[in-house]
Amino acid sequence: MTEDAAGDPWRVTEKDFRAQVRTSRRTGRAAAVVTVATVEGSAYRRPGAKMLVPADGGTVGAVTAGCLEDPVVDLAREVIEAGRPRLETFDLMDSGDDSWGLGLGCNGVIDLLVEPLDASLDHPLATLADGEPSTVLTVVDSADDRHVGNRLVVDPDGTRREVSDREPVPGAVRDAVAGTVDRLHGTGEARTVAVETDGGSTTVLVDSLQPLAELLIFGSQNDLPPLAGLAADVGFRVSVHSPRGAVDEGTFPSADAVTTGHPSTVADSVRADEHTYAVVMSHNLVDDRIAVETLLTETGVPYVGLMGPRARFEELRESMAEGGEPLPQSALDRLSTPVGLDLGGGEPMEIALSVVSEVLAVSNGREGGRLRDHDGPIHPRMSDE
Amino acid sequence: MTEDAAGDPWRVTEKDFRAQVRTSRRTGRAAAVVTVATVEGSAYRRPGAKMLVPADGGTVGAVTAGCLEDPVVDLAREVIEAGRPRLETFDLMDSGDDSWGLGLGCNGVIDLLVEPLDASLDHPLATLADGEPSTVLTVVDSADDRHVGNRLVVDPDGTRREVSDREPVPGAVRDAVAGTVDRLHGTGEARTVAVETDGGSTTVLVDSLQPLAELLIFGSQNDLPPLAGLAADVGFRVSVHSPRGAVDEGTFPSADAVTTGHPSTVADSVRADEHTYAVVMSHNLVDDRIAVETLLTETGVPYVGLMGPRARFEELRESMAEGGEPLPQSALDRLSTPVGLDLGGGEPMEIALSVVSEVLAVSNGREGGRLRDHDGPIHPRMSDE
Repeated sequence: MTEDAAGDPWRVTEKDFRAQVRTSRRTGRAAAVVTVATVEGSAYRRPGAKMLVPADGGTVGAVTAGCLEDPVVDLAREVIEAGRPRLETFDLMDSGDDSWGLGLGCNGVIDLLVEPLDASLDHPLATLADGEPSTVLTVVDSADDRHVGNRLVVDPDGTRREVSDREPVPGAVRDAVAGTVDRLHGTGEARTVAVETDGGSTTVLVDSLQPLAELLIFGSQNDLPPLAGLAADVGFRVSVHSPRGAVDEGTFPSADAVTTGHPSTVADSVRADEHTYAVVMSHNLVDDRIAVETLLTETGVPYVGLMGPRARFEELRESMAEGGEPLPQSALDRLSTPVGLDLGGGEPMEIALSVVSEVLAVSNGREGGRLRDHDGPIHPRMSDE
Repeated sequence: MTEDAAGDPWRVTEKDFRAQVRTSRRTGRAAAVVTVATVEGSAYRRPGAKMLVPADGGTVGAVTAGCLEDPVVDLAREVIEAGRPRLETFDLMDSGDDSWGLGLGCNGVIDLLVEPLDASLDHPLATLADGEPSTVLTVVDSADDRHVGNRLVVDPDGTRREVSDREPVPGAVRDAVAGTVDRLHGTGEARTVAVETDGGSTTVLVDSLQPLAELLIFGSQNDLPPLAGLAADVGFRVSVHSPRGAVDEGTFPSADAVTTGHPSTVADSVRADEHTYAVVMSHNLVDDRIAVETLLTETGVPYVGLMGPRARFEELRESMAEGGEPLPQSALDRLSTPVGLDLGGGEPMEIALSVVSEVLAVSNGREGGRLRDHDGPIHPRMSDE
């Protein structure tokens, strides 16, 4: 987390949030976790957005556009005190001032799951830290309130797992939501599902969590730290693979991991293919060629950005062709060169902005371009809408 | 300048650079200014890129991709000592290792103007700080070296002005470059021009400087500081106009200026129309409507981004129509809603990235799609190429 993020919950990313939750668990700091369960009308944050409220003060993250934060913090403290999860509904539609908001966070009905931070999240967080997805099922409403807070966790392979500190979701409820769970697992989406069983009505929050998107930067030159820093600020896990000699971890303070080695070993620095986006910028033609070939042929990373003008890539491609088989079109489709979105800036920070924006767009299946020129919703639709 | 920028010359923006030059002048700190005059082949930084080398250590900004910085700093210290400007040529083509670079900063021939920081830049910097363009003419080469460092400054209205601490550019040379000067003035481009006069061959660096692009944010909510912070990091001058009550300057530490007042007074916060990009995000429908109308009808700002979904804008447009004349198409063309590039992220920092990227793209006449899908050069061509 950057200095700025430390002082401003609104600059907190999912990465910062998870790090803070892990630290709170490790140090035994009492806290509540607030999760957006459902939203009616428009709200600034979507289902699955989270806020950590430590008992000793402060907040990490945000669940609304600021209009609800005070009552939510009060509620979180009550929940820490009582030790029991609660679902609370906040209705902002009826504020009597219909000029406020209209679709921007302070206008809508929002259901928040507020729960004590306990051991039940340890397993999902460890799974995510290993680069694998995890889905958390939580009963947020039941006929007699008895089951609220009951929890199951879905392992990467789909196995349901009971977790410490929580009763499991009742079997009939678990079976009733199985289809939704399988559909959402690995997507990063969150939604509530209401089911009827012999035990009555039950509402379950299905919260699909994905590992952080990772930016793997191949290089070691002076234009690397601005890119690493910006990517970290925006919430990417950042790793650096330096092809030239030993590099101190302190050289790239924004990086979560730094490795050194021959360009062909860059593949070993990819933790989870599908969540890794690579940018190749060693400024050395031979090193760059080996890194690009390795990433495209030995890994399944969805994106390899290559810094430099088109002419440089053509030279690189020719030297690839001399060495043997040309790269198949399916590999070239994953290559992005010239790297970045077309923003036109030439300063190092502007180039970093262009690259991080492209990586974020690709990670979300977008093409950049101006939203005003597009049709359709700003945010991706849920997978089964 | 951010903490990070202070420690890393590569995160320094034009904004940071100008601030550091002004501070050095104010405090009487001896320093040299290094300017990229010409580049043959490819180089990381373009003509006009600058580095400040204070006599007491450190550097601010960068003129190459790191391969030249040490010899340039040595040269700068010699120039501070000698008190006389010099043009120095660095030839990196002949490094004997043709795998290095190829178009990325350590491969090319680069001419650098190295000069002592003196009073001759005070007037241009003051002009730029007032939101007006300034062009600096400097003799970088002449038959007998006698005129190297001679300088003239072009005022916003085109008037040529002599400046302290430097002999003026000889009249015949001034006349010979007049066409280039008039063409470049206000464009932000830099180039050298060789002319023949009765005095012999003379080369002049025509360095057109523009005021910083300014991001004017209308609002006061929690999603404002992440946007202001990111815009400042990338090099925008940032100003905030808050429509709701008094706001302490400390509320928005990344902002260079903070004003408060009725939404209709937002126009007063626009310093220089053509260099100002506005984002409207008060989250209040009435305030936003007044701010959008005011900016589009009472100012010439080229861009008004409106935060929120399309439906919200339709509501806002209907309430505009009820009040009188609908906005003309020429005004609507400057409106960008939904604001931002299509990156798909929903976290506050991701939204900030999307908005800052759009503003940078618009300020450079770009559309923000992926560079790999475009033809043509990455950087804009010079105006008369």
